[in-house]
Amino acid sequence: MKALTPRDVNDFVVQTYPAAAHDLRFTCDELGAGFAVARWHHDAASLRPGGLISGPIQFAAADLALWYLSFTVFGLAAMALTTDLHIVFLRPARGGDLLARAELLRAGKRRISGRVLAWIDGDPGNPVSHATGTYALTT
Amino acid sequence: MKALTPRDVNDFVVQTYPAAAHDLRFTCDELGAGFAVARWHHDAASLRPGGLISGPIQFAAADLALWYLSFTVFGLAAMALTTDLHIVFLRPARGGDLLARAELLRAGKRRISGRVLAWIDGDPGNPVSHATGTYALTT
Amino acid sequence: MKALTPRDVNDFVVQTYPAAAHDLRFTCDELGAGFAVARWHHDAASLRPGGLISGPIQFAAADLALWYLSFTVFGLAAMALTTDLHIVFLRPARGGDLLARAELLRAGKRRISGRVLAWIDGDPGNPVSHATGTYALTT
Amino acid sequence: MKALTPRDVNDFVVQTYPAAAHDLRFTCDELGAGFAVARWHHDAASLRPGGLISGPIQFAAADLALWYLSFTVFGLAAMALTTDLHIVFLRPARGGDLLARAELLRAGKRRISGRVLAWIDGDPGNPVSHATGTYALTT
Repeated sequence: MKALTPRDVNDFVVQTYPAAAHDLRFTCDELGAGFAVARWHHDAASLRPGGLISGPIQFAAADLALWYLSFTVFGLAAMALTTDLHIVFLRPARGGDLLARAELLRAGKRRISGRVLAWIDGDPGNPVSHATGTYALTT
Repeated sequence: MKALTPRDVNDFVVQTYPAAAHDLRFTCDELGAGFAVARWHHDAASLRPGGLISGPIQFAAADLALWYLSFTVFGLAAMALTTDLHIVFLRPARGGDLLARAELLRAGKRRISGRVLAWIDGDPGNPVSHATGTYALTT
Repeated sequence: MKALTPRDVNDFVVQTYPAAAHDLRFTCDELGAGFAVARWHHDAASLRPGGLISGPIQFAAADLALWYLSFTVFGLAAMALTTDLHIVFLRPARGGDLLARAELLRAGKRRISGRVLAWIDGDPGNPVSHATGTYALTT
Repeated sequence: MKALTPRDVNDFVVQTYPAAAHDLRFTCDELGAGFAVARWHHDAASLRPGGLISGPIQFAAADLALWYLSFTVFGLAAMALTTDLHIVFLRPARGGDLLARAELLRAGKRRISGRVLAWIDGDPGNPVSHATGTYALTT
């Protein structure tokens, strides 16, 4: 399979999931063998008091990063859904875009297991959350 | 402390978290000693293809149910944040409002641990997701 | 399938897993549709200082309860292994046998998802740990 | 604080936790700023059929690695206990010693959060399990 690019992923998502076309706050930032990066574009209207990036937004970023990662294993056409996701919040998240990098722990024939580290763009040394999760093919 | 009602919670959230005033899709449905129920009001525009209620929406419902539960332990004024949340998706979720019922596992002086079962209103025998999570006071 | 009894399970485990014959500290206490109970028989030599029942023992009890639960779904002969297990420690555990009751969240064709509450025999109102986990058929 | 060595940790554990003196199958292998490695010395009598290293042994290794890690943050004398641990089993584990390397995600004043990768000694490219967990001071 020719290597997928972030462009391939972003185009696919916008075409296949119409609601996503309205939610350009999330995009695939990077992609490669065994990893994928989701970016949440900072949006003041979505913040919690104190400028905090909410738990659900961080969850969505980790979930998307794992979904993008599943594309590198199963291809774009495969229908895969989240089986479970466990997110741990480490530090308050504020001040910029959120990046979530998923790394493959194991790829089986029908499921992948990965872990995700998330941080504010520009401050990779202070991750704001960490997650582990699995995606499985639906059919 | 006089027992909190869902009305108390909903009024408090709308006043304190302005962004929430726009997001009336989530409300506190029930509240009592050791439990709290969050309701996501069905909204077709938010669905995934196939009419599925997304993972992030189910995460947000579980997270809110735990937050409401923290009010019953620490009161409305306490600033508590999610420490971690682990959600397992059991069945496809579609077709109506989503209810998420949080149940207290343990209340400490500064943190609570709970578990949450979620189902589609009208179909409680087929939970769509289960979560466990903790909330901790921030100061 | 004629309903399995705890006796069926205990006999099967001792015959099939020789090492288990030496570890009579764990037995199946109860079994039924959608649930299973593992018992750890109190053993002073295994305790941590202060008479505490260790994390690994509580993990093993939860893991066994889910394994027994998998028998009620797939039968005794099915080879199933733990995919993941998440255990949260709620209260110090000491003073008696440990009981761990697994409850089915969902049974698929090849995997089950369950949750487990554990307590000291005689004190069910103060659970010492809670776990969620999955078992999957290996072939 | 002068940097702790694995020797310091192993001596401390044997002196403080008498039961551990009989369980020399687990030792601290390495220790440094932000990481710690636990080793389970291969013991045929503990294996499951097929020579598999059991889930509870892998859990114990991850739990110990996090405990050793807590020493690097809080010192040897601090009494810290596991709050929660989530372990995901990735591949069958067999054939040699098990190594579990804990890495610090965040150190607070009273708790640490870490993640642990485990593999069979000599085969680090094929991790057998991954865990995330927290330790908290008890007083």
